[in-house]
Formats: sequence, structure tokens, C-alpha cells
Amino acid sequence: MSSPEFSHLDAAGRARMVDVTAKADSVRTAVAEGRLTCAPETITQLRAQALPKGDVLTVAKIAGIQAAKSTGTLIPLCHPLALSAIDVEFAVEPDGIAIRATVRTTGKTGVEMEALTAVSVAALTIYDMCKAVDKGMSIGGISVVEKRKE
Amino acid sequence: MSSPEFSHLDAAGRARMVDVTAKADSVRTAVAEGRLTCAPETITQLRAQALPKGDVLTVAKIAGIQAAKSTGTLIPLCHPLALSAIDVEFAVEPDGIAIRATVRTTGKTGVEMEALTAVSVAALTIYDMCKAVDKGMSIGGISVVEKRKE
Amino acid sequence: MSSPEFSHLDAAGRARMVDVTAKADSVRTAVAEGRLTCAPETITQLRAQALPKGDVLTVAKIAGIQAAKSTGTLIPLCHPLALSAIDVEFAVEPDGIAIRATVRTTGKTGVEMEALTAVSVAALTIYDMCKAVDKGMSIGGISVVEKRKE
Amino acid sequence: MSSPEFSHLDAAGRARMVDVTAKADSVRTAVAEGRLTCAPETITQLRAQALPKGDVLTVAKIAGIQAAKSTGTLIPLCHPLALSAIDVEFAVEPDGIAIRATVRTTGKTGVEMEALTAVSVAALTIYDMCKAVDKGMSIGGISVVEKRKE
Amino acid sequence: MSSPEFSHLDAAGRARMVDVTAKADSVRTAVAEGRLTCAPETITQLRAQALPKGDVLTVAKIAGIQAAKSTGTLIPLCHPLALSAIDVEFAVEPDGIAIRATVRTTGKTGVEMEALTAVSVAALTIYDMCKAVDKGMSIGGISVVEKRKE
Amino acid sequence: MSSPEFSHLDAAGRARMVDVTAKADSVRTAVAEGRLTCAPETITQLRAQALPKGDVLTVAKIAGIQAAKSTGTLIPLCHPLALSAIDVEFAVEPDGIAIRATVRTTGKTGVEMEALTAVSVAALTIYDMCKAVDKGMSIGGISVVEKRKE
Repeated sequence: MSSPEFSHLDAAGRARMVDVTAKADSVRTAVAEGRLTCAPETITQLRAQALPKGDVLTVAKIAGIQAAKSTGTLIPLCHPLALSAIDVEFAVEPDGIAIRATVRTTGKTGVEMEALTAVSVAALTIYDMCKAVDKGMSIGGISVVEKRKE
Repeated sequence: MSSPEFSHLDAAGRARMVDVTAKADSVRTAVAEGRLTCAPETITQLRAQALPKGDVLTVAKIAGIQAAKSTGTLIPLCHPLALSAIDVEFAVEPDGIAIRATVRTTGKTGVEMEALTAVSVAALTIYDMCKAVDKGMSIGGISVVEKRKE
Repeated sequence: MSSPEFSHLDAAGRARMVDVTAKADSVRTAVAEGRLTCAPETITQLRAQALPKGDVLTVAKIAGIQAAKSTGTLIPLCHPLALSAIDVEFAVEPDGIAIRATVRTTGKTGVEMEALTAVSVAALTIYDMCKAVDKGMSIGGISVVEKRKE
Repeated sequence: MSSPEFSHLDAAGRARMVDVTAKADSVRTAVAEGRLTCAPETITQLRAQALPKGDVLTVAKIAGIQAAKSTGTLIPLCHPLALSAIDVEFAVEPDGIAIRATVRTTGKTGVEMEALTAVSVAALTIYDMCKAVDKGMSIGGISVVEKRKE
Repeated sequence: MSSPEFSHLDAAGRARMVDVTAKADSVRTAVAEGRLTCAPETITQLRAQALPKGDVLTVAKIAGIQAAKSTGTLIPLCHPLALSAIDVEFAVEPDGIAIRATVRTTGKTGVEMEALTAVSVAALTIYDMCKAVDKGMSIGGISVVEKRKE
Repeated sequence: MSSPEFSHLDAAGRARMVDVTAKADSVRTAVAEGRLTCAPETITQLRAQALPKGDVLTVAKIAGIQAAKSTGTLIPLCHPLALSAIDVEFAVEPDGIAIRATVRTTGKTGVEMEALTAVSVAALTIYDMCKAVDKGMSIGGISVVEKRKE
């Protein structure tokens, strides 16, 4: 069969963890993005009351960093990886907040799941802090925008 | 000021955990949804090789349930809650998989963050298992669809 | 059908977490036992070098207590419970060590999984500390010996 | 003294973590086995209601994989290891379920504790899902069947 | 003997977890304090480069809150508690930073360990962020300043 | 500017995790110390009732070892590290207990935070076990006494 195969499924269609023992350690980088969409009034209110102090985005950044470190616990078939760099950045827009996470490791597997997890949990953390003022928020556009092996 | 206030910010705009000590224990339910969007070929391939065994969705369900339990660890300003029920359901569609999580507790705060976390991590888990065959997937539409206090 | 039913399976045979929201809080106790079987020489050597200081059994006891607390994380369909008492006791025998764990909570579900988990991890911890001197150990007889609701 | 020594005890008989700093990284594999023993009727009922969907064994497999990853947290004197492969297999027998876990790493210490932990927690997870229909189950025969360094 | 007794030791002097099953749920509050002592130049430099943005203290606050939630995992004989409020405050002084944590729960045991843990981990987090500029810092004065049951 | 810089702050004063990807793996050792200060009567009573069995210090040692392993989870901007050795030692003095932790790894960053965390949590654990007999204890003098790269 010429189509790509699900690496996490064995020949019988059962879930499995991929054996990466024989893979070489490489420097691997992944970048993921996502977005929390909210009412423009929520952004206005954030700019007035919360963003000057910076806490909302700092709390979300820390949550994203911590989540990236625990990806191997959260995602069952992921391998645990010792991450060497995690960054989470935010862009405040008129009706939402864009989130971008960059993760690096020297290891045997890529780190796109770690970057996606950082974005997801950072978004959930902002959602948590804003949910008292906005009941209609949603999180979306979570995808990998770069993956690199050196 | 008559607009709603950020419960997680104090008067100075600094992040804080809300003090829920005086709140009554109520039965609280929250339902959240989200969606992994992928290529139609990925769904076709999943239907042929993975879905008959059921493992992909069962692994994602377990990951979502476990994540809901650890919401208080993942989201910094969330209160830890003893959840009394967590369910994660999936609907396989032609170009994606819809995810719906229902969480219940008897406690002092709502459980929408737990439901959103279950959906997010279940989606990430499917992403992880399909990423070898589809590099263009995205996760979105993560939102609360129901919140109830009895 | 009159036979008992798997509470963790829905009508379609799919795994699920039981919804215990409507259950009353009761005082619940469970006792579990298990045994590490080893060579008589290992026990002799433990008695000579390790048991006087007590560390081996204290380390195993702490590991069992900590594992009981994390049962809701280890066993996917278990509910998280706030345990009010955990005890782990040992009886050193000529060719092994018997382990007994007692767990209590005031909650909506029984604590036999917590007691079984405490026994299992205490046994694994002793195994770990003795494996340099005995390659033929085994762990067995892990079962619930008492379950009580007040 | 010519008998083997407890690596986890110092000269005074006190528990310690072994210093493996100077050990070389090697590819290490360990295989462990164990068994959940239950009533034949439980197996009959599992075959009728649960095994066709596969969820019971998939949930147990995921629990075993996740437990293997957290061995360094569960077993106090174990070193944390970045596992490169974890597999958990099951054989359904007339009066029980045999469990076999294989774990691999490239690291400084062996992985038999990780394999034993995977077997133990997979067995506990099946126990949890069957305990509503069978009060007399037990877990045993947990032992290492292979340990290899390449 | 009329002197107070170690609640965590049984009659034989062995460590144990206290059985709190029969205790009533009360509202419990504890306040703990501590201090990171550093060179005055470090404070000057923090004021110039770090404190305006607020991140250093926000990161430390989040770390303290998260640590308080995991006290039952960190301190072996502590009971897990569902905390209803955690606050961590800082006072920047000429040669150090004072830290004060307040923790509340409705439960069966006091929360002084949770408050002490929050202070300790908040202090360690500041230490971590300042260690590149100051090799001579120390953490001290960690003690309980208030404990209340309502 | 010639003064040393906060490695955990970017040019704008925002917190960040340091990117250590390009650093070489070295053998790194750190030693930290700290002290629990208590009433002389508490030490007298510990010597009479608790220290002969050794459990108090063994429980604290295990807690310190486990905490060192989880430093990357506790301290937000720390990198996760696979520690190759952790030791925690105690000296019982007339009015307190001195604690000393030694941690080693082969990795890209130093392990002083791991040693400081081990000392802090070991001290908190002794505090927990003695708090029923002594309400006036304090923890202090937590500092790094040695840091080495080979």
C-alpha cells in the first residue's frame, strides 16, 4: 500500500507506542499556533484592567510552558522528552488573542505535540481568566506551523 | 462600573485565585465541544484501518478523562475538584471528528474548564495518532455548550 | 439478563466512567493484601543488613501511601477521592514479605482500588530495593480482603 | 563478603538512591509478566459484552503505558528514565488474563521496574473494570522474564 | 506522659498517616511567611529590569499556588485537600523579598503545610530567576504566622 | 551594561525559559543546605520516641528525593532533567535538624534548583511530622554550598 501509515497502529489496527530506540538524537524544533476568539468588549476590558499589569498573559505563558513539559503524561502515546526550550507568545487582536508556541529538544522524536499542547493550555488558561466577563469565547485554529530537524 | 468583572483579577489588575470558601456545594454539569479537522482521506483511512478496532477513539477518550481530572494542575487559577462523572464522545464526520465532553461534580465551582480541557486533550490525542498520515490537521471550535447548576 | 453487569461498560460495550454524582457520601474502608516472594537468603540478608534500620519497609510504606493518593491518576476510570486514612503494614516471613493496606475515605465510591494500588506499589518498591541481590522474586496474591461502608 | 549487596542500602543499612552518573548509556530492554485471575464466568461475560469492542484491554494498555512513564515518580529510589518504547500485551485465558509488558530505553539503568509497573497497573485497571461482576479476583505472578543490555 | 505527642508516629515510633475520617469538616485558614535574602544590587537590578513588567513575582505566585495544590503529593503524610483559596503576596525590600501565603479549605485537617509549601516554592522560583545575577542568595524565616478554624 | 543579566528575562523584562539546546551535556553536581529550627524539647522528644526507629528522617529523605525529581514541574522556568544521583542527609542538633542535599546529572543545565528543592521539601516533611508537638518551628538557611561542572 502506497499511502502513508498510522505509526501509532499496528498491523491489526491496535494502538501502540512507536519504538524510537534506534532513532538518532537530533535537535528538533516545532512551532504551533492557535487563537482564543472573544467579544471585542472583552479585549477592550482586558486592555483597560488586565493587560497593563501583564498578569493574564504571564499566567497563560507559564501554564503553556508547564503543559509542554507534561505532554508525555497528557498524551498517552507520546514519548517523554527533556525539552531544552519552550516559548509562548501572544498577540492581542481586536476580537481575540493569538498564541504561538515554540518548543525545542535534542531527542529521538519531534516536538509538535508539545507545541500544540502549550498553545492549547495557554488558550484554556486565558479562557479561564476571562470566562466571568465573556460566556461566548471559543478556541480554534490550533495547528502546527513549522517543524524542523537539524 | 456596571460591566462584568474579571473574577481572576484583583482591584490592581493582578491575577488571583477566586476564594470560593463560602460558596455552597451544588451539583454542577458542563458540556464542551470541539473538533479535529483533517483531510477526507485521513477519515477514509481511519475507517479502513483504525476505527473497526476502536482503539483510536478509546485512547482519546481515556486521555480526555484523565486530563479533566488534572484540570486543577494544568490551569493555574482553577480549583481542584473531585469530579463525579466524565464522559467524552466522538462523532466521525467526512472531514473530521467532533468531540463532546460532559463533566459533573458536587462542588463549589463550575466545571466548564474541566469539560474544555477534556475536549482539548482528546483532540490532541487523536492528532498525535494521525499526524503520521496527515500534516495539515487543525483543532478548533472548542467552546462550552451547556453549563448547569442544580 | 440477571447476571451482574460491568459498571464500567455502557450498553454498547464501550468503556465509561461511572456517574456517582447522585450517590451519598459514606465512610468507606477497604483492606487489600499482597506478597513479595523471594529467596530465603534474601530475607536472611535483609534481616542482617537492612531491617534493623527499618528503611526498606519505611520507604515501601511511603511509596504505598503516595500511590494510594494517586489512584485516580493511575487507574483511568477511577474517581479521584480525598482519602482520610492510609496505612500499609508488613510481615516479614521466611521467604517473602506480606503486605497489607487499609484505606478510608468519606466519599461516593469504595476504596478497594486505592488499597490494591498501595499494596502493589509497596511491593514494587521492595522489589526495587532487593533486585540487586535476588533476580527471582515475584509479586502475587494481590486481592481485597475487606470492604466496608458505614 | 562474597554475597551480592543491596545497591539501595549504604554501609549503615540506610536506603539510598544509586549514583549512576558514571554509567554508560546503553540500550536496555526488560519484559515482565503478570496475571489477573478471575472466575470463568467473568471471562465468559467479558467475551460476550466487552472484548468485541476491545475497550477493556485498550484502557488497561494505556494505563500500563502511562504508569511505566511515571515509574520514577511511583518508586522512590528509581531514576527517572526517558523510555523509547513501551508495549503491553494481553492473552485472554479461560479463568484470567495474562499480561506482558516490554519496555526499552537508552539510558544508564535497567528498565525492569518500568516493565513490572506497567504490568501491575494494567492488571489493576482490568480489576477495576471487572470488580462489579467479580468480587474474588486476584493479581499475581508479577515477575521479570527478560532483561537485556545491548 | 503529659507532653504533646507526635501525631505522625504510632506507639512503636513508626511513621503513620493520621486517620482523620471522624473529624468534622471545618473552614480552615493558614498563613505562612518566608523570605528570600539577596544582595541589594539584585533588588536594584530587579527594580530596573524586571519588576516593572511584574513577571518575576507573577511567575513566583503561580508556582506557589500550584505547589499548594500539590502539597498532598509533595509531603508524604499529608492528606490531599481541595483548597478553596490560595493567595501569595510579596513585599520587595532593600535586600530581599518577603513572601506571605494564605490558604483556605473546608476540610478535616489544617492547611499550614499548604501555606508553608506555597511560600517555599514561591521563594525557590524567585531564586531560580535571579540566580544568574546573584550566587549568594538564601531562603529563610519560613514559618506559620496564623492558623484558624471556623 | 557590564552587570550580570537575568537569564530568565528577555530584553523587555518578560519572563522566559532559557534555551539550552546548544549547551553541551556535562556532569553537574550541586549541594544545598538548610535547617529546621525547633525547640530543644522537640529534639529531646524526637530522640526518645522517633529517631531510634529512624522513620522521621527516612520519610523526609524520600520526600526530598521525590521533590528533586519533580523540580521541573514545581519551578516553572526550570528544565526537566534526568537526575543520576540524589542524596539527602541530616544532622540532628540540640535545637534543630540540619539538612544537606546533593544532586547530580549529566545534562545541559546545573542542578542547584534540584538540590534546593530537595532540602526545602525534606524540611517541610519534618515540619509536618513534628507540628503536633511544636508550633514554633521555622525553616531557614536554604542556600547552595557547592556547584560543580565536570
